[in-house]
Formats: sequence, structure tokens, C-alpha cells
Amino acid sequence: MAATLSDQIQHAIDTKTKPLGALGKIERLARQIAEWQRTLAPVLDQATLTIFAADHGIADEGVSAFPQAVTRQMVGNFLGGGAAASVFARLNGVALRVVDAGVAGEPIAHADLIRRAVAPGTRNFLHQPAMTGAEADQAFDAGVALARATPGQAQAFGEMGIANTAAASLLAHKLTGLPLATLVGRGTGLDDAGLARKLDVLTRAAARTDGPLPPALAMAEYGGFEIVMIAGAMSGAAQVGQLVLVDGFIATAAATLALARHPEIRPALVFCHCSAEAGHRALLAHLDADPVLDLDMRLGEGTGALLAWPILRAAVAMLTDMASFDQAGVSNRA
Amino acid sequence: MAATLSDQIQHAIDTKTKPLGALGKIERLARQIAEWQRTLAPVLDQATLTIFAADHGIADEGVSAFPQAVTRQMVGNFLGGGAAASVFARLNGVALRVVDAGVAGEPIAHADLIRRAVAPGTRNFLHQPAMTGAEADQAFDAGVALARATPGQAQAFGEMGIANTAAASLLAHKLTGLPLATLVGRGTGLDDAGLARKLDVLTRAAARTDGPLPPALAMAEYGGFEIVMIAGAMSGAAQVGQLVLVDGFIATAAATLALARHPEIRPALVFCHCSAEAGHRALLAHLDADPVLDLDMRLGEGTGALLAWPILRAAVAMLTDMASFDQAGVSNRA
Repeated sequence: MAATLSDQIQHAIDTKTKPLGALGKIERLARQIAEWQRTLAPVLDQATLTIFAADHGIADEGVSAFPQAVTRQMVGNFLGGGAAASVFARLNGVALRVVDAGVAGEPIAHADLIRRAVAPGTRNFLHQPAMTGAEADQAFDAGVALARATPGQAQAFGEMGIANTAAASLLAHKLTGLPLATLVGRGTGLDDAGLARKLDVLTRAAARTDGPLPPALAMAEYGGFEIVMIAGAMSGAAQVGQLVLVDGFIATAAATLALARHPEIRPALVFCHCSAEAGHRALLAHLDADPVLDLDMRLGEGTGALLAWPILRAAVAMLTDMASFDQAGVSNRA
Repeated sequence: MAATLSDQIQHAIDTKTKPLGALGKIERLARQIAEWQRTLAPVLDQATLTIFAADHGIADEGVSAFPQAVTRQMVGNFLGGGAAASVFARLNGVALRVVDAGVAGEPIAHADLIRRAVAPGTRNFLHQPAMTGAEADQAFDAGVALARATPGQAQAFGEMGIANTAAASLLAHKLTGLPLATLVGRGTGLDDAGLARKLDVLTRAAARTDGPLPPALAMAEYGGFEIVMIAGAMSGAAQVGQLVLVDGFIATAAATLALARHPEIRPALVFCHCSAEAGHRALLAHLDADPVLDLDMRLGEGTGALLAWPILRAAVAMLTDMASFDQAGVSNRA
């Protein structure tokens, strides 16, 4: 019986000039990427980071250390090249684009900004659903369409939205059943009192609806436009055979939503970074995800995915460029 | 009173457009590199990986899963471009060179190989000192001289030498007093019986000398030519103001030796990777080192340092290229 492609990939990895398994996560990444691309010679040389920005009605409840205007200001900073994501994308040769998924205030005037705003921010989900079902569908579908039209072998997705750790925590709670207290953290830097207030607000918001919710309902009740659009974009990228680079806590909440709707995309997802945001480790464990990096970062914007990109490329190069014991004339273990 | 450079560096990091501390390890690396280069505008665009190869008399005791001939064969593989280190160095723009520090057998004929062999392998330290004091000094000094003559802002050091985890474990034990059982691991892949034999051999070899040893004695009694030469090279690179990228377990044992002789080089050392080799975590903790990556690798060759290089460059780019809140017109926290 012929060996399966999966067996052939593992054999190729195992006969490279190194002790069995000695490249650890690099080997596991190479295997995942080769299996996803269905080839012994995977290619990973073009990636795009799309940053989705949106505002959140829940910011009215004082759940963030920063004012809402920062969402809009950071869109300018991404486009101007001064944000962390801008700097890391340039350094690592990843294309960067920015999408207005629903920033508060007047539409932002910038030639390079991609306009997909569903509304100027969500409603305050402490008192009412964050968006209508139609708005949620619009956001998800816009993400799918954008990602499907993007060239390359990999897509990363970042986010910007003051108060979006609040939305991400609650959405993840309603999708997974993990305790809210586990999923709620300091976001951009709340102090103890701010953290207690955030947990109180989210506990009351969660009580508006009963227990866990199906994904279509969860995303409308508690989502953010950028979070829902990222979930759509992850689904769309996987549908066209691309690798999905999952960033930090909020991107992982979006991935949880995407997986709830499209569980078949799981093999496309590479979890790039374990964030310092409190709930991330628990959410990653729930998804059985072993992140590539753990750099004690909690910024979002796709920064974790950008820093993991050279490591994913190294994994592919290991498989395609390293010599085997036979090729190099090196003795394998006795 | 004028702010110190250290204060100025921290202020520059703290006013970048991100929440305070949100880039975690990236911020700490940027601070270390800027302080080491004594500037607010550090540069990190040229690095060299030097792989030192040598053989070990202790290999006669069956402490490795691979035959000794592999050291020599892998030198050819590094120079031929097929080893993991060759592939990662090419991908990440790091220059690679290979030094014969003491490989067994006839001298290796290759135009690109740098010849610094002290002897064709160490003596078996189960029965006698691995090298004479003069040989140890020769190895250390050759490393210093090589590294001092190398251009760039950073140097990484890799190693190849069948049985060198045995030498590294024993050397680290004699330098630090950490228990041998903590420091001894499976190397390239010993099974349980092999691991027990290795620990027994090293326990007997350790008993040849009394307790902890001063560095000059420890390196002659239990060192390897590649390990001692790396310790010298680390010292030399730091002496000329370069950053020292410390790789895995064996490189960390070399760093322990370098630090015992030249404690003033500590600020130049970036610990790049926590190896899956059993003793590495304990040795890193002893040195109060917080490694950049943890990729479950245990290959050596400088692979961990090579994969950390793009992350170190990102840390520098954060400091030099990111906009401040003022520059970007972004509001800082309320």
C-alpha cells in the first residue's frame, strides 16, 4: 500500500540531518503547513496582515484605560507607518492594510483605508444587542469576501478597537462556556478597581441572555464589528487554501467564532502567540492550541502573528531546503 | 539633574504608541540592546553565526546515540548548506562560518573551513583531564581572537560535537554546583538505559576531582575544545561591543564558563532559546536568564539563536521606527 502524503511528509522530516524530533515545534509547524498545502514542497513567501478597526458601545461603561478616540487615531498611525504592527510588517516583508469595520464618528478620509464600516460602532451590549443579526451577517460576509480576494499563501488578522477585550471576553464566554472571571483581564492596562468594574459590567451584560449561545446569536449580542469581520476573514482565507495566522486574545476570540461556524478550517489555523492578557491561555487550551511564541506581549494589532512569520518560514525551509542523511552523507543514529 | 541614558531609553519605549509595557519581552530586549550599544538609536543589521566543531574522548563511553564520525560529516553538511543552521542562516540573512576546533581524524580539507584545531578531540575525562591547561588556554584565546576580528553588531555561536552534552553537563556542574542529575539529559536521543549510563559515567568522572572547580581548572578537566572556544568567542565579541546571541544548552554552558572568567560581559548576552535538553531550564534559571524563544528544540548548531535574530531586530525597530504618542497625534491613557 502506498504511503499517504501525511506519512511521506513525516518521513521527509524524520530523515533530515538532525536527531529525530530535535526541531520540536518547527517540525510540527512544517508538518501542519505541508499537510494544509497538500504537498511535500510547501511555499510560504507572501503574507498579508489586515487590521480591522471598530468601536464598541460598551466603552461607555469605562471598561478601558484609553479614550475611544484612540481607535480612530490609531487607524491613522497604522496607515502612517508608525504603529508597532506597521514597523514589524515592514521589517518582516508582510503587506499591511487597514479596514474600517465600524469606527465611531465621521468616516475617516484616507486613500489607503478600506471602507467596510457596518455602523459607527456597536451599541452598548450592557443594555441591548451589540448589533442586529443583519449587521452581524454583513460584517462576517465582508470579512469572507475580503480574505478570499487576497493573494499569497498566508493571512494574518489584527484588530484595533478601544474596549474590544471586553467584547472578546464575553463573546468567548458565550461560545465556550469558560468562566467569565477566567476570560476577563486588564486589556490595555486597567488597575485593580478598573478590572473589578469591567468584570462587574460584563457579568451583568452576560446575564441579559441565558447561558451559552449559538454562534450567530453570540456574535450579534456581544460581538464587535472588527471581531466578527476577522472571524469571516479567517473563514474566507482558509476556504481559498491559505494559512491563517492567529494573533492574540481578540484574534483568538474571533477564531473561536470562526471555528464554531466552520469547524473544518481548524487545520489552517496557526496560533502565533500567547498573549499576556489574562484569558488567552485558557482560551488557547480550550482550542487545544500550542502557540508559537510567548513574548509577554498584549498589544494586538497582529503583532504576535508578524513576529511568528519568520519562524513559520523557517519551518517550511527546513522541509524544503535541509539535506537528508543520505543526501549529506551523514550517518544516522547507531 | 539630567536624565541618564538608561532613563532616556525607558522614556522612549514608554512613549511609543502602545499601552505601557504592552510589548513585553520586545521592550526588555530593546532596552538591553540600546543600553549595551549606549544609544537611543541602536543598530542591528549584521550578524555572524560561527559554528565550532570538535570531538570528545568521553564518546568512547557510549554517552551519545550517534557515532563520533557524525561530527566530521556534519562539518561538511554545514559548509555544503544542508544543515538546519545553514538553512536558517540563509533565510534570516546571517553569515555562517565553521571552525574546526578539534575534530577527530585527519584534518578536514575544505577551503571555507577555519582551522583552529587544538588536537584531534579531547581525552576521555572519565580517566584523565580532557585537555592540558595550555590546550584550554589555546582554545579560549583562539575564540577571543576570532570573535574580536568579526564585523557586525552581533555574534551567535553554535556547536557540533558528538557527546558534547556530556561535557557541557559536567562543566556546568563543576562551575555552578547544580546537581549533575539536573544537568544531564538525553542529548541527541538516548533511551532510558542510555540516559542512566550517561549519568553513571558522568558521576564517576565528576568524582575524579573535588567539588566545584575554578573556571581555568574546570575547562581543562571537563571541557570540549568547541565549548572552551565558544566561551572565548563570547568574551571577545562582548569586548568589542557586540551583542552575544546565546543558543541552547551547550552554548549556555559555554556562557557559564565565559561569565565565570569575565562577569562583566553579562549585559551583552541575549539568551535566545530554552532547549528541550533536560538541564537547560535549570542552567538558565541559575544565570537569571529569560530566553526569547521556547520552541521545544534540542539541536544546537546555533539554530535557536538564528530563529531569535528577527525578533531582536524587531525589538530594535520598535525603538527606532515606532511613532510616539506625540508624533502620531494619539491620545495616551486617560
